[in-house]
Amino acid sequence: MARQERAAQTRRTIVAAAAVFDELGYEATTIAEILKRSGVTKGALYFHFTSKEQLAQEVLTSQLRAVPPVEEQRLVLQQIIDETLLLAQLLSKGDPLVRGSVRLTVEPGAPRDGLDRRAPMQEWIGHGRDLLRRAEAGGELLPRLDVDAVARMLVGGFTGAQILSNILTGHADLLERVTDMHRHLMTSVRCRPCWCGSTSPRTSITVYDEAMRRREAPLPAAGD
Amino acid sequence: MARQERAAQTRRTIVAAAAVFDELGYEATTIAEILKRSGVTKGALYFHFTSKEQLAQEVLTSQLRAVPPVEEQRLVLQQIIDETLLLAQLLSKGDPLVRGSVRLTVEPGAPRDGLDRRAPMQEWIGHGRDLLRRAEAGGELLPRLDVDAVARMLVGGFTGAQILSNILTGHADLLERVTDMHRHLMTSVRCRPCWCGSTSPRTSITVYDEAMRRREAPLPAAGD
Repeated sequence: MARQERAAQTRRTIVAAAAVFDELGYEATTIAEILKRSGVTKGALYFHFTSKEQLAQEVLTSQLRAVPPVEEQRLVLQQIIDETLLLAQLLSKGDPLVRGSVRLTVEPGAPRDGLDRRAPMQEWIGHGRDLLRRAEAGGELLPRLDVDAVARMLVGGFTGAQILSNILTGHADLLERVTDMHRHLMTSVRCRPCWCGSTSPRTSITVYDEAMRRREAPLPAAGD
Repeated sequence: MARQERAAQTRRTIVAAAAVFDELGYEATTIAEILKRSGVTKGALYFHFTSKEQLAQEVLTSQLRAVPPVEEQRLVLQQIIDETLLLAQLLSKGDPLVRGSVRLTVEPGAPRDGLDRRAPMQEWIGHGRDLLRRAEAGGELLPRLDVDAVARMLVGGFTGAQILSNILTGHADLLERVTDMHRHLMTSVRCRPCWCGSTSPRTSITVYDEAMRRREAPLPAAGD
């Protein structure tokens, strides 16, 4: 393994261990705890990150990338639904990085703790807006929709559904809450003749299984 | 002032000072800070509350009561909207008790910090369900709606809208986010011929002003 590849691997190991933010929150998590969980040396950690804050910021900004891609769908609205179902599955199955990053995003944090929690929210909104614009171009949306507002509602709606589900059931009913949100939101945004999509806890299992197969598939050998 | 009334007043003063939970979060807030802000003695505080946890729990359970009632509306859906707009106004104007209680509810908290965050969520859902059942009885809703699921969506949708708005704009766009949610949710739940309600940031100002006038009106003298 080349030195560069080893360094990248170490960095990923550290970021994965930072999933401990999910258990303890930002304040209570220490560098010592992350060293213990990652098994890397203090020197290696400080080679990659100058502080707990910088590490937490990387966990925040890698949120979107931590979710593997779903299969592309002819109906873009279906793809939006599949992505949201996949995120819900990752949260409820306890994917460490996704959970750690999502907790960091929504915990109100101490004043001036230095974390920029806007980054992941802005990325999700931007990503949703791009997909919705493609849906709009394909005639899937009702005319005169405010695509930016719908993207914000999707992100806000998901955030609220997962927080409510976490408080009341420890995420046990997250899929129900998210599919309810989909059904209602789709009623008010979709152009009806186009719509033959599906959303349900059962759909989410298929989407999750497919995404995990792709995540685990060995990368194609790049000439070695 | 009778002794009982003085005690109740002291208790309210302590709970109001506990709004500091909004600034600092549960972990970082100390009894010493609450004593400083409330101006009550340690003895008085411990007469009413045995611990920080018990005080925080009272802040959590008084969330629904901290929102003054809105004027009753012929259309129950309009009343639901008005209540949500009022809550949004209280949050964005920085009502201390409402903000403190809402932060305590949504902050993920340390494991085993002992706070039961389900209480306010369950109260809001129950309250929403009652109103939605009245709307259903009055023919305001589409047939075959799952009223319980809609109540959860309202609470989840509001929670997500306020968190997203807080992260991105410090609640500056909260009214926009909430009215967007209303417009979309109403599209999928309302029985159209019944609907002539209104939701907008401007509506929210009227609702807030009226509620504040009622809150500030002197209580009718009770025989003294």
